[in-house]
Amino acid sequence: MGARAHISPLAPASPAELPLVAGVTFATAATGMRYKGRPDLMLALVEAGSTVAGVFTRSKTRSAPVDWCRASLSRGTARAIVVNAGNANAFTGRAGMRAVKATATAAARAVGCAAEEVYIASTGVIGEVLDVRPITAALPGMVSTARGDAWAEAAKAIMTTDTFPKLATATARLGGRQVTLCGFAKGSGMIAPDMATMLAFVFTDAALPQDILQALLARAVNPSFNCITVDGDTSTSDTLLCVATGAAGNRTDRLTDRGVAGFAKALDSVCLELAQLVARDGEGAEKLIAITVTGAEDDGAARRIGLAIANSPLVKTAIAGEDANWGRIVMAVGKSGEAAERDRLAIRIGGISVARRGAADPGYREDALKPHMQGRDIDISVDVGVGRGRAMVWTCDLTHRYIDINGSYRS
Amino acid sequence: MGARAHISPLAPASPAELPLVAGVTFATAATGMRYKGRPDLMLALVEAGSTVAGVFTRSKTRSAPVDWCRASLSRGTARAIVVNAGNANAFTGRAGMRAVKATATAAARAVGCAAEEVYIASTGVIGEVLDVRPITAALPGMVSTARGDAWAEAAKAIMTTDTFPKLATATARLGGRQVTLCGFAKGSGMIAPDMATMLAFVFTDAALPQDILQALLARAVNPSFNCITVDGDTSTSDTLLCVATGAAGNRTDRLTDRGVAGFAKALDSVCLELAQLVARDGEGAEKLIAITVTGAEDDGAARRIGLAIANSPLVKTAIAGEDANWGRIVMAVGKSGEAAERDRLAIRIGGISVARRGAADPGYREDALKPHMQGRDIDISVDVGVGRGRAMVWTCDLTHRYIDINGSYRS
Repeated sequence: MGARAHISPLAPASPAELPLVAGVTFATAATGMRYKGRPDLMLALVEAGSTVAGVFTRSKTRSAPVDWCRASLSRGTARAIVVNAGNANAFTGRAGMRAVKATATAAARAVGCAAEEVYIASTGVIGEVLDVRPITAALPGMVSTARGDAWAEAAKAIMTTDTFPKLATATARLGGRQVTLCGFAKGSGMIAPDMATMLAFVFTDAALPQDILQALLARAVNPSFNCITVDGDTSTSDTLLCVATGAAGNRTDRLTDRGVAGFAKALDSVCLELAQLVARDGEGAEKLIAITVTGAEDDGAARRIGLAIANSPLVKTAIAGEDANWGRIVMAVGKSGEAAERDRLAIRIGGISVARRGAADPGYREDALKPHMQGRDIDISVDVGVGRGRAMVWTCDLTHRYIDINGSYRS
Repeated sequence: MGARAHISPLAPASPAELPLVAGVTFATAATGMRYKGRPDLMLALVEAGSTVAGVFTRSKTRSAPVDWCRASLSRGTARAIVVNAGNANAFTGRAGMRAVKATATAAARAVGCAAEEVYIASTGVIGEVLDVRPITAALPGMVSTARGDAWAEAAKAIMTTDTFPKLATATARLGGRQVTLCGFAKGSGMIAPDMATMLAFVFTDAALPQDILQALLARAVNPSFNCITVDGDTSTSDTLLCVATGAAGNRTDRLTDRGVAGFAKALDSVCLELAQLVARDGEGAEKLIAITVTGAEDDGAARRIGLAIANSPLVKTAIAGEDANWGRIVMAVGKSGEAAERDRLAIRIGGISVARRGAADPGYREDALKPHMQGRDIDISVDVGVGRGRAMVWTCDLTHRYIDINGSYRS
């Protein structure tokens, strides 16, 4: 896979530097299961008493690890997260759940906790039985070498077609203390989150009851992971976990407390940053496309219109060709099924009005848009003239490289 | 546009030969509006007293010609159809309807009928005002030279990114007479019909009241035009018209009469053949993909699951790469939102069982599928294990040529 050597031109100049989060350590290992010469197994260890929240794919064909995590969440505490890259352990029948249980049991034994406190995520090819022996063999050694500063290694070990690791951090004041949030994610193709997306893990030293953490996480995914798309294909494995170790020693606040609002904001920003990094690493991406929809019936309608534009192969190929073919944006609004007033529709690209009142803007000259279309960041704003709903959605262009990558992913 | 010289490898060896339909003639002209050196204007003339039925895009940003045709249908009779290729006259504000009316008025004057008896369809770039002068100038000469055997010329004149003309025919017994149905269509990209698709015109010499014709046409689109997709992008201009001249002199039957069932079957077959030809000419297509979904909650659910598979960029690129990556079919079933039993899911490709009971078929060897994947016709069957709903859906693979064509369509 020569494609792996390529790094997305939309990658940040360097990955974010993440501080320690008290109570969290990481280890990685190279099992050689699919990838050669790179770590493909990640273990995160968290302090006893850590609470955990999760949001998962809504796919009807979700993977065994997703089933496992959803069931474990009712317990609400975590001690470890195990992630393998290269095999999604999805659509693997009973062998799938057996593999999950074997992994959880091995990790639990090495850590000294209950199997239900081990969360598991798998990413990679669908439909191949996962041989867990290389995983269970590696886990004990990983427990003894885990370090708190291994963020970059952890983020790299979970990558599949990703071209760069995705990391984000933020701080907040909560219950009289400063708390830290750090997270990482993977995802590049099969990205059309429906509830959460791909794999993302956020850790904080804040002390937060599980129900509050879950409520905050469920809110945070809507304007972040649920507002990005690469190809409109929703994964069987989408998993977002957030673990709070409580090591910061803050008071535990109620959901309505002012401090919680500050923490929620920090959590939102980490989720949004990770989500945008995934869009920046969309398979074959050459341009990041930010779509703002206003004037929709409500925020949900605005998001669906934005995603209709973001998922349109015709819009995405036009942008890959640096062609401001805004007629295709009109088409995508029309096909979304959401209320839109054709004769009040207005479109701006790169801040320049190209269409208003349902027709081309008489003052628009295509030449004026050329520099914007040739850039890396494409801004599209659409007002559909119906109500006050608004949303922002991110995606990338559709290029030859997407086809190269996906015509031969397994080979 | 060097892409235009390419002919889809999925094209029939030669276009269908269509017989005359009494009461219908055609003329074409080259206006030079967008394309050089090829006819881009089509006029169909039908006998006085002809009834007409239509099905149109459900897009919220539908074109002015679609608005015009929908309004005219209440009258129920037609004398002419005018189609121009290269400019969709969509999202052109008031200028759009002005252009439609000017065209209809000019055609009506040349034909000697009411403007409302002239149906209009435009296909091509969205958002550019249509200059009708070359059209209105050409119409009078076209009326005097129209011929009944100009099917192929008519089918070619309405093409945009199409690489071959699309024609189909059938006959039926109706009210004591043999009646003939002939039709042609265009469409290659922006194909994800939602009610009808692209442009298609069917003519018959049968005598049929408008309400019966409309009911039959509305039924015919569901298993045909509504079961194909190229890119999931629904056009602003989708128009299917069916004209019945009555020249066959058959008795007019009621919708429940046995003869009508035979006519309906012939109409269904013409619509299905035209729809499949559109899928065969999908932009950049190298392989025709037929997807059969069984075991769904109902037929509508089966169709939506089929379309989720057919619209998945990951499924389509895998097939372009001749990779039987059936895990992506599982993903697409999961994202469709329709009921499916993961642990009862079964998938066959090219008649070979690859997955059953929610996991890979133990007897499946990937090598056995190679010859099928290397062929032009890919068959996928999916049983989702829930109910008795079934549907067939057609699409094509997603190749580099799609990106070439759509990164530079306007230039």
